[in-house]
Formats: sequence, structure tokens, C-alpha cells
Amino acid sequence: MRTVDWHEGGVRLIDQRLLPNRLERPVFHDYAAVAQAITEMVVRGAPAIGATAAFGLALAGFQSQATDRLALLRDLEAAAALLRSARPTAVNLSWALNRLMRVAASEALETPDGVRQALLAEAQRLADEDVALNRRMGYNGAALVKDGDTILHHCNTGALATVDFGTALGVVFAVHEQGKRVHVLVDETRPRLQGARLTAWELAQKGISYELIADNAAGFFLQRGEVDLCLVGADRVAANGDVANKIGTYPLAVVAHENSVPFYCVAPTSTVDLALAEGALIPIEQRDPGEVLGLQFAGENVAPAGARARNPAFDVTPHRYLTAIVTENGVVRPPFLESLASVVRGAR
Amino acid sequence: MRTVDWHEGGVRLIDQRLLPNRLERPVFHDYAAVAQAITEMVVRGAPAIGATAAFGLALAGFQSQATDRLALLRDLEAAAALLRSARPTAVNLSWALNRLMRVAASEALETPDGVRQALLAEAQRLADEDVALNRRMGYNGAALVKDGDTILHHCNTGALATVDFGTALGVVFAVHEQGKRVHVLVDETRPRLQGARLTAWELAQKGISYELIADNAAGFFLQRGEVDLCLVGADRVAANGDVANKIGTYPLAVVAHENSVPFYCVAPTSTVDLALAEGALIPIEQRDPGEVLGLQFAGENVAPAGARARNPAFDVTPHRYLTAIVTENGVVRPPFLESLASVVRGAR
Repeated sequence: MRTVDWHEGGVRLIDQRLLPNRLERPVFHDYAAVAQAITEMVVRGAPAIGATAAFGLALAGFQSQATDRLALLRDLEAAAALLRSARPTAVNLSWALNRLMRVAASEALETPDGVRQALLAEAQRLADEDVALNRRMGYNGAALVKDGDTILHHCNTGALATVDFGTALGVVFAVHEQGKRVHVLVDETRPRLQGARLTAWELAQKGISYELIADNAAGFFLQRGEVDLCLVGADRVAANGDVANKIGTYPLAVVAHENSVPFYCVAPTSTVDLALAEGALIPIEQRDPGEVLGLQFAGENVAPAGARARNPAFDVTPHRYLTAIVTENGVVRPPFLESLASVVRGAR
Repeated sequence: MRTVDWHEGGVRLIDQRLLPNRLERPVFHDYAAVAQAITEMVVRGAPAIGATAAFGLALAGFQSQATDRLALLRDLEAAAALLRSARPTAVNLSWALNRLMRVAASEALETPDGVRQALLAEAQRLADEDVALNRRMGYNGAALVKDGDTILHHCNTGALATVDFGTALGVVFAVHEQGKRVHVLVDETRPRLQGARLTAWELAQKGISYELIADNAAGFFLQRGEVDLCLVGADRVAANGDVANKIGTYPLAVVAHENSVPFYCVAPTSTVDLALAEGALIPIEQRDPGEVLGLQFAGENVAPAGARARNPAFDVTPHRYLTAIVTENGVVRPPFLESLASVVRGAR
């Protein structure tokens, strides 16, 4: 089952907000609703929202009433702009849309319907490639993990964060397929709780050993020597190797570094933004304070009425805290400025 | 309103598990129920559980049917053992019980009723002293805070964590009383959410500016230079200055240190355990995984059915990450081995 696919003329998603309690797969027939689904995190995870935007743009092609090629391209530009603005931090959104717009602009496509079909085919190709490269990336990363290791994992980076298989959690799945036994400490990942809701669910489905911990407890286990390595994904990697990822990644990396525990970022080259020199330039999304304030325990609200909150969705981990970055084209190590550029060009 | 007091022949507590939704003040007439209330965190916070144990032991004296002094002392020893075992990490529990047992053992007290009255008087004195020394400690710490500062605060260390006024949050209250305007970033403090439930509530009551943040977001604000200082309490301070405190304190201290943000621990000398050379010797309580697994969001359980969790309640912050320790007898700085011993002896 894929996180996103083309189904009966529309974009089908898994509504991740309902997991692990209910598995629902709504189909969207309006690209603006797809953009909204990305904003509202029906679908999340950098590679997954890239593929969703690609299918969304293909959908926009079919929605357009344009009868000539230039009019269709104008409609597609407008749709791409809306989809691009759905979330600001993950670069995969722009990457996927740029890739599809290059196809749409191809001179070889002479009719609007030709463009429409080519866009859908390209979105399908992008999605298929995502699954294949995730497997490759997972096996690249698996070489870093030994039988018996305990892995600390942040957020969700599994099948749900991609079209299928996952990035950092894909490494765990590859390790599992290789027959190595590992144990995963899954942090909850407040405020959206992707660890508790999604990563725990994915690991349970595959029968991989895991325990849930409060985000606050990660330092305890790192300090006690109970963690052999940390695995995280990325929403955008700058040219120098600085990584924007789910809020809480940065303190985890600092504490792992302080305890000499390897810290690996696992991300496809589509997540690398060579146009940005460093992480400080990555736009950080600030989300609804309600994500913090809406918490309940034992059936009751936790925060007092009238409380205010701040809710940055991502933080930036400076590259000096990273042991390596795992991509589909290989594992790159410092200095990242050189090694990342090389792996993005596929030169390795 | 005190967190713990003697009321109609029993120990009255604020049931902190119900805040901020309901303010209830149950009265306990059985010292075993007082011990259970400490274990179940009806009352929490190192100084508060110290005072609660003191009143609990006084209650045990009145419950005892002993008609001679030695029989009463034996009953008190048994009660003290039970109260002492209610929670392992905070040393204040032992400190308070030892103080009361020394009074009980006084040769000057010839009758069982004399012992009983002396114990209650001593518990009352200990509680009154807690309030007075917290105010002194708060004003000692207030000298470290400037008008306009933003303070990052972990867990709850306010009036609710003590008999009244608080430790780290007492510093904020003292600053507020001095007319300095400060802003507090209150982290939620998973798993028990003392920040979201209790600290936010206390700050709101006093009209002090605050915003709630996910624990994961603390690093973001530290990295961005938005935090002027961090204030935390302590459950036990070893002779070398290592601090056991609420889970999540250690990673916060590491990240503050990495960003050159001052990190202050605020704790009365009753929390200092000179008998322990270093933090690694402090017993760390492991609590019910249900505290992690019971989380709800939007009315639904977060973790999948069958999930397991680990739940250490405290971590140990090595003294090298601390800028200073604020006590009622003054602010001590490294090397803590000398400065702490001196302040505990009251020599400063």
C-alpha cells in the first residue's frame, strides 16, 4: 500500500492524522484540496509531499479547461505555485514540481492532452523511483548498523513519510530484511507525535522490536550508553550539510555528539538544496499553536484555558553534529560541501 | 494557599494531577495513604514531598497506639521507612524524615504525647522554613536576571513544587515582585506535563508573560539566541554539583551550554546530598510506562495498542554544564565540590 497514488482519476492519500486508530484513504479530485491536505498534514514527510505535489500537478492538468498548450501551461504554473506554497521547509515540494514543469514545457508535447498524459506519467515515474531509491538508500544505510544495535529514531521517516519504504526508518527495514536484530527507541515527537502515532505503528506492523520514549528521555539513554546510533530524516539539506528536520532533531544531534554516538541523516538527493549555502537560510515553518495546546491526558486538556504557545515545526542541525548523510547514491561524510555536491550529481 | 499543610488532624494536599482543570485539596488521615499520594504524584516536587513526608510522619505519631516512648519510636521508624520508599530520587524525603526522627529521639521528650506534639511542631517549622528560604533563594537568584530577559524553564518548580513560592520559578516570582518584566518559555515536560499543566497555570495566576513550547522546541529557541537564561530545580544534587532533576534537564543543559546560555539550578541546601560523591550514584526512578502510553490528542489515544514504553523520571546533569547553583544561602559557582559544601554548612 502506497502513501500516495493515482486512483480513479484522483490523488489517493492515507490520512495520517487518523493513524494508528483508523486507516482511511481519501481520494482528492481537486488540486487545491491536495495542497490543503499537504498543509494540514493529511500527508507529511518530505518525499511523500513531493510525490503528492507531483500527482497534484498532474490532477491540475486534467482539471484545466485549456484547449491550447500555452493556456494549459499557464494553468499549471498557477497550480504549481499553490502546491509549492503548501509547506515551506521541505524542498522536495519544489523539486518535484520543477521536475514536472520541465516535462510540461517540453517542445515535443504538441497538444494539451499530450501534456496532461506526460505529467501523469512523470508523476508515476517519480513515485516509482522514490520507492526504488528508498530501498537503495536503506541498504546503503544498513551497512552502518550491526546486529544487536539499539537505534534512536526521531519523528516518522517510514513508508508513510515517502511513497513507500522510508528514509531513516527504511534503513531499519533494510537491516530487518537482512536478518539483523535491532531495537528501536522511538521518541514521541511532540507536538504532532509522529513517532508515537506512525513510527510505532509501522514498526509494530513489521514485528520490529521497539519501545516508545518521551522526547525528554532521549538524553538519558544516550548518556547511559544504551544507544548505538541515531537515525533521522531531513526536510532540506543545505549545500554545506546543515539539515532542516523535524523540531527536536537539533538537540538530539547535539546530545548524541556530546556522547560520541553516531548521528546519521538519511535523505534522498531530492532533499538536498545545493542552491542554499547553509542551514540558516532554510525557511522554517511556524505552525498553529493549537498543535501544542490541544494535548489531552486522561481525557482532559493539559494546558490552562487562555494559554499561548509557539510552535516551530523544524529546526536546523549544523553539519558538524552529523556523522554522515545517507543517500540513494551512497553514504557521504564530511566535508559535506564537496561530498554532497558529488553525490547529488550522481558522480559517485 | 500552601501545597501541603496540617488540617483538621490530617495532611492536606493539593491534588496536582487534577490541575489546571480542578483545584481539589484532599485531607489524608493515614500516613500510608500519604506515602501512596507521594508515589502517585498527588504531590510532587522535591521540597513539597519533603514537607509532606514530615507531616506524614507526624500523622503516623498520632495514629500509633503506643503507650510508651520506645514503642512509639519503633512505630515511627516503620512509618519513616514506608514514607522514605515512596519515591527514590529526591533526597528531601530522607532529609525531612531524618530531621523529624532526630527530634523524636530527643531525650528531653519523656512521654509519647510529648513526642507526638514535638513531631507536629517540627513538621510545621520545616514547612514554614521552606517558604521563608524559598523567598530568600528566589531573591538570591533574581540578581542573575535582567529586565526584559527571556527565561527557559523546565518542569514545575513553583509554589506547587514546594510548600509555597517555589525554587526556580520562585526566582521568576522574585524577579516579578522586583518589577522586572520577563518572559518565560515553558516547556511541556513530557511525560507528566508539569510545565503545561502546572507552571503555565502558576504563571497565568500571577500575570507573568509566558508561552508554552514542546520540549522538542527548546533547542530551536536556544540556538536562535532567544533565551537569556535557563532555570531548573533539582531532586538531588551530589557533592560535586551533578544534578538529578526531571527527565529532559540533561539535554537542555547540554544544548544551553553549546549555545553559551547560562544554565542555573535553583535548589535549597536540603536537596544537596554531600554523602554522594557524584550524580551517577543517584538512584533514578523508573515510572509506569502508562505515563507515556496514556497520551491522547483530539480525544484519541496516540500510541498503537500493544505498544511498550520506557519511562525514566529523572536524568543527571553533570556539573560542567551548570553555570551556578542558587541556594537559600547564596549562589555557588564552580568548583562546586568546595562551594557546595561551604553553602550547605551555612558558612557563607
